[in-house]
Amino acid sequence: MARSRLTPERESELYEAVLDLLREVGYDGLTMDAVAGRTHSSKATLYRQWGSKPELVAKALRHNKPAGLAEIDTGSLRGDFHAMLERTDDCQMEKDSALMRGLAHAVHENPELHRALRELLIEPEMSEFDEVLRRAVDRGEVSADNPALKLLPHMLFGAFVARPLIEDRPVDRAFLAVYVDAVVLPSLGV
Amino acid sequence: MARSRLTPERESELYEAVLDLLREVGYDGLTMDAVAGRTHSSKATLYRQWGSKPELVAKALRHNKPAGLAEIDTGSLRGDFHAMLERTDDCQMEKDSALMRGLAHAVHENPELHRALRELLIEPEMSEFDEVLRRAVDRGEVSADNPALKLLPHMLFGAFVARPLIEDRPVDRAFLAVYVDAVVLPSLGV
Repeated sequence: MARSRLTPERESELYEAVLDLLREVGYDGLTMDAVAGRTHSSKATLYRQWGSKPELVAKALRHNKPAGLAEIDTGSLRGDFHAMLERTDDCQMEKDSALMRGLAHAVHENPELHRALRELLIEPEMSEFDEVLRRAVDRGEVSADNPALKLLPHMLFGAFVARPLIEDRPVDRAFLAVYVDAVVLPSLGV
Repeated sequence: MARSRLTPERESELYEAVLDLLREVGYDGLTMDAVAGRTHSSKATLYRQWGSKPELVAKALRHNKPAGLAEIDTGSLRGDFHAMLERTDDCQMEKDSALMRGLAHAVHENPELHRALRELLIEPEMSEFDEVLRRAVDRGEVSADNPALKLLPHMLFGAFVARPLIEDRPVDRAFLAVYVDAVVLPSLGV
């Protein structure tokens, strides 16, 4: 795909607008027309650049993620998890949680969105987590055959999505730090 | 509320119709007119009996739940969890998972639904889990100050909702049994 005509700043602006719209109207309500309108670009540019709405949304979400989780390497698994938490502020987490709730529903009805999210967001992020876990296994902190190694995304997703639903409280760093220490690390035998 | 005019069979039928509609059109798409139409009842009856759409939906969901989780008492926490899993079949779980994904989104935009679900579904179910956990604490299986005691719903919700999203596979009994053994019990120190 030819991306040469968009500066990184312009691309960022577009992704921010997509995420704002996603929070305001949800995936089904988001139209390429609305993105074009809000960003003062043409629909032709959007389609040339991103191909489709699911791809645009998945790339916007990926853009939103702090890069290079796998580069965090504090020397202990607990240190790595807590360093990850340090990198996101509470306000951002609350926004992410709302987006994830909306998307968990939307992917159910939009297989194309599901595919784009898996390919562009879920799988790359899982690879980064796998890298952090692999180092813990190499250090001997976690047993290589611990079945919880494959369940980390499920545990974290539960923390993110369930707290607002069950406790009626937003997800924040303090809660996730407790969850990591009380659920994630014990399941991994750390 | 006067419930005298509905037999338990008729009430069941109504709840089933509400859940079918919920799966077909989602919470926002579900109207009291559609419920009345499908069940050949009058809207006046529905409102007299349930007061509002959020209350009707919450009661239909509660009706759908296997009763008396707290009565399961096998003598060990692991036994209790696995006995709970035995009580639901895979097909039912897949349906529940789809409903939960839809509702996680809907409650975000419908505080009245959130309130009804918390009061009629989430809190009663959490009380039942608390009872099962309390017995494990009394038996000395789980330490009374284990922080994971308060995080069980989050762990389970993650397993239910994340598997289709992350692995593109439905939730089934075999997966939940692995999750209970690999995540839930270790976090509780069992």
